[in-house]
Amino acid sequence: MPVPLRVRFVGGAVGAWAVESMAVIAGAPLSPVERVGVLEGRSAADPGGSWVLEGVTSNERYVERDEREALVAKQPVLGRETAVCAALIPIRKSPAWWDLTQDERRKVLEVRSGHIATGLEYLPAVARRLHHCRDLGGPFDFLTWFEFAPADREAFDELVGALRSTPEWEYVDREVDIRLHR
Amino acid sequence: MPVPLRVRFVGGAVGAWAVESMAVIAGAPLSPVERVGVLEGRSAADPGGSWVLEGVTSNERYVERDEREALVAKQPVLGRETAVCAALIPIRKSPAWWDLTQDERRKVLEVRSGHIATGLEYLPAVARRLHHCRDLGGPFDFLTWFEFAPADREAFDELVGALRSTPEWEYVDREVDIRLHR
Repeated sequence: MPVPLRVRFVGGAVGAWAVESMAVIAGAPLSPVERVGVLEGRSAADPGGSWVLEGVTSNERYVERDEREALVAKQPVLGRETAVCAALIPIRKSPAWWDLTQDERRKVLEVRSGHIATGLEYLPAVARRLHHCRDLGGPFDFLTWFEFAPADREAFDELVGALRSTPEWEYVDREVDIRLHR
Repeated sequence: MPVPLRVRFVGGAVGAWAVESMAVIAGAPLSPVERVGVLEGRSAADPGGSWVLEGVTSNERYVERDEREALVAKQPVLGRETAVCAALIPIRKSPAWWDLTQDERRKVLEVRSGHIATGLEYLPAVARRLHHCRDLGGPFDFLTWFEFAPADREAFDELVGALRSTPEWEYVDREVDIRLHR
């Protein structure tokens, strides 16, 4: 896959993923939909749907060399046959977050919140892909995507619960948790 | 100005800035144009021109707190009446750069190359704005924009010369230096 890869998540009546639940964690909701489709690559064609969230995979912004090596050694690919559960969690961070400098954001994210280390604990059960969208415009800053097997649902709930209790999450001002299966 | 701010640089027969020279520093050239227009904000309208380079101002990726304070204290705004000279320097960095982790990129950029410290030396003579475009797609990763008075031309040449001699510039694989006046 080329990086940056443009990805659109299309909420509507069609798409490979059936919506189980849509929970508002913070801020405004997204309008309820039955299915979500995931479209990779650039296209000018209108994908339809009730809403379209567009993001792009990009270079990592915080991960350091030793962390990347630990992640690469453990992280699974997307599309595993057994991973029939997914979560799409769009997130927006507050102006206060974006006003921090790089060293301050890293400090909140990893030193105080252990975001990367916590994520590592749930590998290889949970496959993940991060899509950036603040610079594209649109209502969120990140579109986070996760895939896991039904047996790992509880572990996934534990992971998102742990992250939401960290100092980093004090900077999250909009978050919708969409659970899916195919 | 809202951040992220979308900015388009349109090369063609019209625009506020007259082209003095277009020098290829690395990689493929851009087709020669007479003028460059700078359009701020989002618009679906076709701006015309021979080429359009689109970028977005964004959060800083490397600057730390003490560096930001030093920059903010010295950096001038764009659009000063005396600053009738400008440079648009689109830059692309190599896959090897983007494959570095955050700590490695910071090390090359500032610890080994002194990019931020060198830039500081030329403030307030040179006003600058950085536009990111790697995540938007398009042929460059950054569109760098500078404004200065005619008397500071030599200082500006010195600044870009100093940066091009650093280890960071070993990762630059496409660069076009467009000099302008209005």
